[in-house]
Amino acid sequence: MNSKYPKDSRTTLTDLVLPSETNPLNNLFGGELLARMDRAASIAARRHSRRIVVTASVNHVAFNKAIPLGSVVTVEAAVSRAFKSSMEIFIDVWVEDRESGLRSKANEAIYTFVAVDETGAPVPVPPLEPETDLEKDRFAAALRRKQLSLVLAGKLKPNDATELKALFKD
Amino acid sequence: MNSKYPKDSRTTLTDLVLPSETNPLNNLFGGELLARMDRAASIAARRHSRRIVVTASVNHVAFNKAIPLGSVVTVEAAVSRAFKSSMEIFIDVWVEDRESGLRSKANEAIYTFVAVDETGAPVPVPPLEPETDLEKDRFAAALRRKQLSLVLAGKLKPNDATELKALFKD
Amino acid sequence: MNSKYPKDSRTTLTDLVLPSETNPLNNLFGGELLARMDRAASIAARRHSRRIVVTASVNHVAFNKAIPLGSVVTVEAAVSRAFKSSMEIFIDVWVEDRESGLRSKANEAIYTFVAVDETGAPVPVPPLEPETDLEKDRFAAALRRKQLSLVLAGKLKPNDATELKALFKD
Amino acid sequence: MNSKYPKDSRTTLTDLVLPSETNPLNNLFGGELLARMDRAASIAARRHSRRIVVTASVNHVAFNKAIPLGSVVTVEAAVSRAFKSSMEIFIDVWVEDRESGLRSKANEAIYTFVAVDETGAPVPVPPLEPETDLEKDRFAAALRRKQLSLVLAGKLKPNDATELKALFKD
Amino acid sequence: MNSKYPKDSRTTLTDLVLPSETNPLNNLFGGELLARMDRAASIAARRHSRRIVVTASVNHVAFNKAIPLGSVVTVEAAVSRAFKSSMEIFIDVWVEDRESGLRSKANEAIYTFVAVDETGAPVPVPPLEPETDLEKDRFAAALRRKQLSLVLAGKLKPNDATELKALFKD
Amino acid sequence: MNSKYPKDSRTTLTDLVLPSETNPLNNLFGGELLARMDRAASIAARRHSRRIVVTASVNHVAFNKAIPLGSVVTVEAAVSRAFKSSMEIFIDVWVEDRESGLRSKANEAIYTFVAVDETGAPVPVPPLEPETDLEKDRFAAALRRKQLSLVLAGKLKPNDATELKALFKD
Repeated sequence: MNSKYPKDSRTTLTDLVLPSETNPLNNLFGGELLARMDRAASIAARRHSRRIVVTASVNHVAFNKAIPLGSVVTVEAAVSRAFKSSMEIFIDVWVEDRESGLRSKANEAIYTFVAVDETGAPVPVPPLEPETDLEKDRFAAALRRKQLSLVLAGKLKPNDATELKALFKD
Repeated sequence: MNSKYPKDSRTTLTDLVLPSETNPLNNLFGGELLARMDRAASIAARRHSRRIVVTASVNHVAFNKAIPLGSVVTVEAAVSRAFKSSMEIFIDVWVEDRESGLRSKANEAIYTFVAVDETGAPVPVPPLEPETDLEKDRFAAALRRKQLSLVLAGKLKPNDATELKALFKD
Repeated sequence: MNSKYPKDSRTTLTDLVLPSETNPLNNLFGGELLARMDRAASIAARRHSRRIVVTASVNHVAFNKAIPLGSVVTVEAAVSRAFKSSMEIFIDVWVEDRESGLRSKANEAIYTFVAVDETGAPVPVPPLEPETDLEKDRFAAALRRKQLSLVLAGKLKPNDATELKALFKD
Repeated sequence: MNSKYPKDSRTTLTDLVLPSETNPLNNLFGGELLARMDRAASIAARRHSRRIVVTASVNHVAFNKAIPLGSVVTVEAAVSRAFKSSMEIFIDVWVEDRESGLRSKANEAIYTFVAVDETGAPVPVPPLEPETDLEKDRFAAALRRKQLSLVLAGKLKPNDATELKALFKD
Repeated sequence: MNSKYPKDSRTTLTDLVLPSETNPLNNLFGGELLARMDRAASIAARRHSRRIVVTASVNHVAFNKAIPLGSVVTVEAAVSRAFKSSMEIFIDVWVEDRESGLRSKANEAIYTFVAVDETGAPVPVPPLEPETDLEKDRFAAALRRKQLSLVLAGKLKPNDATELKALFKD
Repeated sequence: MNSKYPKDSRTTLTDLVLPSETNPLNNLFGGELLARMDRAASIAARRHSRRIVVTASVNHVAFNKAIPLGSVVTVEAAVSRAFKSSMEIFIDVWVEDRESGLRSKANEAIYTFVAVDETGAPVPVPPLEPETDLEKDRFAAALRRKQLSLVLAGKLKPNDATELKALFKD
């Protein structure tokens, strides 16, 4: 399979924060944002693989900034690294001030999806070739995250996680 | 403030998988499960702190098992460790076979919530005292997860994350 | 079929009152609570019978207490008596004060479900054996309620409803 | 206050059964129908009283007939008797066959609403004057239902429920 | 096929404006009203044709009047003209003042539906015979609207749109 | 106020067709697409004006192409012409084939929004300056559409609609 670029899977979901999606402080519920990011990420994974895709895991997501009712929120997702049949998707969330028009970063998240056939069995996906500096950074970090995930799941010995171990060396 | 036990915040949300919550393979959408877990976890955090709580982060969540349309899903959440104003919530997800009545584990997830006042400013929460062996294990691991989260966010040097570093020593 | 106990079907659905579920006084809509109770009751009926179940009737439900936006509501359902293929489900609804942590009773309701096969035809269900005093009271009252329901539907002559008639004797 | 007629509050809600509202047999969920009936009944109560209204109770509701996905369902609600500040609402549910155009009765239900002011305190409502034979029958039966409801709630002694007791006399 | 009258397809959908359907000014979202009108219009088209129907187009819709949260909104739809396999549906939207009980016109809209078989292929529908003066006016105007729609889509030369051209003659 | 360009308001909403949004042929409901287009168009209008905006009208929308369950749908909206306080928004809808990755046009629609202050009173908006050929075409056609809309509403005599009348001259 030919390589693809992050731009081939980039997905933009700009939408309003509706009254049914807010918590008692009138900000977007964490759970609603997780669901929107999942939908955008699944479309990015599908654009890269052209297969049915299912959520495999959600890596660390930090909610740094409250997003108030009525905000315009933009979720941008793109494949950051492809493995055998799994894909890491990097998601940036932006919120936009109505009066000034300024966009500021509200969140980052990383989801992993697996491409499957109609029976649910994993199928191979094309490799990813990063282009910009930011894409290259995210591509490199994806390997460390995969090792970390395998270590935490008990499927890789910490000392074999060479990329990760390098972080902790004296 | 007096300590509380995990059982004081334990929250059970048993509900059906409805047709509007399924993906093309007729299984529960990852995003919908993330939203349900967020609601259950927020109730657990609220029961521990008796304050308004907001989602601070979602740690690694693995979707190991597809959950088909019509399933009965039980989300159980309880505080696993309390820090100054944040609480780690451990979530177990069970799915139940209608015919045999057998319950099997579908997922685990860890969310962090922060207790806030009406202006959104963090407020202190009671300490947590684990009772069972499982609760003690999760309590201990919570510290490693917090260090990892600080390292990944660039707020702690890897070599200062002593609990975590121990994992990678020769 | 072996008897089952109420505890075998007990189902707990703890969830928040969301902004999309409130009326102009900012309290939970009656209709939304009816729908949540129906979902919890259907899971209890399914756990007792291990069959597909459908709502047959809703007995008298009183809404004694308004449930404000942002409340934590717990719906607890369990089979209170099993007939040939129908089951009476008793539902208790509790609401929890965030600051004090006190739980108070908000509602009681009784639903009847029928177990069916894939074609929708009724199938037999196991008998129910009550254990606690409260379960025994509800079990006994269920027969009077069934008679009342048959009388109101014109399927039983009032004078044949012996349990019920006893209530009105001089 | 001047009397009103049932036709003054008659409310018609004709809508489709959508895919998100169906159970595993592809029929309308009992809980969804309860919620729709509550909305239609609340509008009827509001049209009679011209006040804010809240659901006070749901009397017996029988689900005699499954309502399949894609059906056209008509919920018709009208006040059947007015008391001091409460109103009994009688609800008829019809389902329509697409090909033949025939309408058949799917359900009947009776809800009680209370008119309240902005603080939630009960306020008086106009009396109801029934016109047709069916309206007169429902008006008379409403008193028996109110007595039954008071008896079941322990607020009226069975022997004082004269209308009701007459049903069980030899 | 025998003719049908507008009254044969008249559909009434009276419902509340719920909190999840409002914009930042606390009025019903335009998009929500468009969706409700589509459901009511599709039922009218189905009652006329007794076939599966799909939305073919929405003609000009003006939102002249804001509809606040908590309003009672009545959407009335009826077939205004039938063509070979398409039907024009005229929709009137009324909003009702709770205190005075007065109904005022909030909107008018015109949708076009096509009757199809299970494969999605168009099938013929009965002709429509208007009865009242208003129905006759709308029936006549429907032809001009159809010509305008064909002109705008480039399927009819402006000079062949005789009904329409008459409007612009000197 | 300085002019703005269409690109300043361009809004992309890419999302899945979910099971709760489909009709009996398993295609996206017309009403759901109308609601999505309304949300995207309102964001475009807000980006141009930086004010609260409300839907004023929907011009002709044709549903040429069914959009099946599970599709990826992209709604792209941008201001096509600004008047005193109203803005015409042109919306393109694309649907994407999962296997080939090909995008095809599913719909076009035109909505009009008005910018308002907190009391709902209209406020002026910046002029629009089209850049590309397509933007210039749409800008020119917007004037004809506005005249047509005024003629149909009876607010402009057909013979004064000079741009429009030119279409029908011999």
